[in-house]
Amino acid sequence: MTRDTLLAEAALRVGDAFGEMLQAAFYEMTIDPDARWTYDIVERDDGDFLVMPGTYWFEPPARWPAHVAAGVDKARGRVLDVGCGAGRHALPLQERGAEVTGLDTSPGAVRLCRRRGLRSVLLATVADHTAADGGGARYDTFLLLGGNVGLLQGREHAPELLGALAAMSAQGARIIADSLDPDVLGRLDPTHAAYAELNRRRGRMPGQARMRVRHKTMTTPWFDYLYCSPAELGELAETAGWRVEEVLPSEGPSYVATLVRSV
Amino acid sequence: MTRDTLLAEAALRVGDAFGEMLQAAFYEMTIDPDARWTYDIVERDDGDFLVMPGTYWFEPPARWPAHVAAGVDKARGRVLDVGCGAGRHALPLQERGAEVTGLDTSPGAVRLCRRRGLRSVLLATVADHTAADGGGARYDTFLLLGGNVGLLQGREHAPELLGALAAMSAQGARIIADSLDPDVLGRLDPTHAAYAELNRRRGRMPGQARMRVRHKTMTTPWFDYLYCSPAELGELAETAGWRVEEVLPSEGPSYVATLVRSV
Repeated sequence: MTRDTLLAEAALRVGDAFGEMLQAAFYEMTIDPDARWTYDIVERDDGDFLVMPGTYWFEPPARWPAHVAAGVDKARGRVLDVGCGAGRHALPLQERGAEVTGLDTSPGAVRLCRRRGLRSVLLATVADHTAADGGGARYDTFLLLGGNVGLLQGREHAPELLGALAAMSAQGARIIADSLDPDVLGRLDPTHAAYAELNRRRGRMPGQARMRVRHKTMTTPWFDYLYCSPAELGELAETAGWRVEEVLPSEGPSYVATLVRSV
Repeated sequence: MTRDTLLAEAALRVGDAFGEMLQAAFYEMTIDPDARWTYDIVERDDGDFLVMPGTYWFEPPARWPAHVAAGVDKARGRVLDVGCGAGRHALPLQERGAEVTGLDTSPGAVRLCRRRGLRSVLLATVADHTAADGGGARYDTFLLLGGNVGLLQGREHAPELLGALAAMSAQGARIIADSLDPDVLGRLDPTHAAYAELNRRRGRMPGQARMRVRHKTMTTPWFDYLYCSPAELGELAETAGWRVEEVLPSEGPSYVATLVRSV
């Protein structure tokens, strides 16, 4: 490891890099709709990056892929948008008259949702939110979109998160979630296939990514984020009293799955 | 430093990350003109990233900023495109009938230029190319575009590079070069101002960036790349027998400068 690497690492401040990026993109979009200087930069622990334009997190319904739009259309009743980001899905749902609450652990994301007019938004983890107000059957729909199947993290954490959602579920509640199928990713890109193999060797799920978000000289802590196939999602759901009801595929690795309570 | 960081660094292979990125973008563009999965990711040693869409390096003249298009229009006679990349400027010049040679140290970039139809393209440094064939007044125009004032690296290397170009200069030869002005960058973004200050403290020019290009799990070695103001460029030029003839500004940090021999 070179001195340059040490400098680069030493210079990084740990903080809300995702929220800072969202805010930078938001303000840049006011002068340049394409916000060409701001990117969402996600570093994986094999050194690979997932890069998306900052504008991605603000795309209106007209630009959503068809399977995502179809997934959002399934939202009913009281909606909890888990990991709501800048409010990409929550704000259009609110405009359609839905009763929607945004939840995020990024202070910058939460500030931005408030500023953009989302009436109900909370800076909290799902566990915090479940514990608050004595729990209870508060929601009819949970959104885990923008790849937020990832929040299941892996085999250990998935039952906790799915259990917490179950504890807040009204009768007939549904989870609407999307992910990228690591098997499809691996066929498209040998780097992803090699990463899946590395994960198998270290006892992790193939698509269990260890990542951090980078923005300017700020980084989030490293965190686990899960990419899984519909079949793997079904297995994780089963351990926590949910089952996959429907899978909406796309032409690529992305899919939307809906889950309902199985017990 | 965490174990994740060690894994990320250890997993990196040193190689032609820029050329690999260009080729990935090129093939992706054949199925998706926006090549939304491929980005040019440049890491700076303060941890910041400069990210550009891979498609940036393929933009046709109609998409060039006005000051860059005006700069390219000044090319006359035999042209050497220093750091030609995918041939963004060299190919249109060739189509206009210019006698243009592309020069790059990236094997992937050189392969791509050949594949895209650039007739004269060399895998070599400027120093190698100057030494070859006994030198001589071979060129009327040198292009240092796409930020390639950067190839001057800093105060130490600039006279070497400018001297090597001088050695290949025909009577009346001109350099057409572009850069980002670090003073303007610093006013737009405090991260760049802090980096300039870090550079001053360690005895470097304010815009002397220590960088590497990342692609998938490949990285180039760290290298110095210079961003300088027109005034700083003038000072560097003077030490090597060139002078700034004209500066074509833009609304932002980018500018094009033309240089002619002063001796």
